[in-house]
Amino acid sequence: MSTIYFEDIAEGTVRDLGSYAVPKDEMMAFAERYDPQPIHVDEEAAAESVFGAVIASGWYTASVCMRLFVDGFLGETASIGSPGLDELAWSEPVYAADTLLVKNEILETRPSRSRNDRGYVRNQIRAYNQDGDEVLEWTGTNILLRRDAD
Amino acid sequence: MSTIYFEDIAEGTVRDLGSYAVPKDEMMAFAERYDPQPIHVDEEAAAESVFGAVIASGWYTASVCMRLFVDGFLGETASIGSPGLDELAWSEPVYAADTLLVKNEILETRPSRSRNDRGYVRNQIRAYNQDGDEVLEWTGTNILLRRDAD
Repeated sequence: MSTIYFEDIAEGTVRDLGSYAVPKDEMMAFAERYDPQPIHVDEEAAAESVFGAVIASGWYTASVCMRLFVDGFLGETASIGSPGLDELAWSEPVYAADTLLVKNEILETRPSRSRNDRGYVRNQIRAYNQDGDEVLEWTGTNILLRRDAD
Repeated sequence: MSTIYFEDIAEGTVRDLGSYAVPKDEMMAFAERYDPQPIHVDEEAAAESVFGAVIASGWYTASVCMRLFVDGFLGETASIGSPGLDELAWSEPVYAADTLLVKNEILETRPSRSRNDRGYVRNQIRAYNQDGDEVLEWTGTNILLRRDAD
């Protein structure tokens, strides 16, 4: 497969990044390691909470979206990292056995002013559950090399 | 230990959340699962990249910071989740064996207008490496119950 470079990216492109059924054991193992709050790791406490059951760590949900983003787009590009996100919203809770559907939209492309081998791609990730509710949204920037940088 | 509620939170408080030496195997295992880009999982490709070696997925770095945040503060509070982050910056790359030092500052507290059992705590996480370089920064909001909500 040929690599996608900065100049190949078109503003406004929307990609379906596929879906992922959230395994309870993976969701809870992530939280045990990185976000061991009762609502994420303690089934009894979570049942009595406002959520009624264990919910995913927002960092787990973001990490699942990142994997779909890499598999469905970023992994085919000449990406060399990200300076960060403009915003990240955990819009609704994610429960075990939810199926997440993830989309990416290219919002803006901008050549670097200081380094002529690269450009910035500002884009948005949105994740929905099986009921169509948005559960996560982020807007971030990826740095991609230009074709002649190779 | 007694639970920290919304009304116990003071704007301007700065907490040292401790440090974490990044194990290469954990850092790369995270990327294999959630962010398998060559700069994170392919030692040869990363050596030839602008980074010169494998670097951490930004989501791994954020997850490590979250763990320190939970252990050092959030886990002692009546936290019931987060609507999201205002921004997240991956300021500098994180390499295997780096030691991350993480701090938290309470920026603003605001009672919920619509639900009198809770309030919003806007706060900032900053992570530095062993050279004192900032590697990550986020500003986000956590929702905490008020004492009389119990």
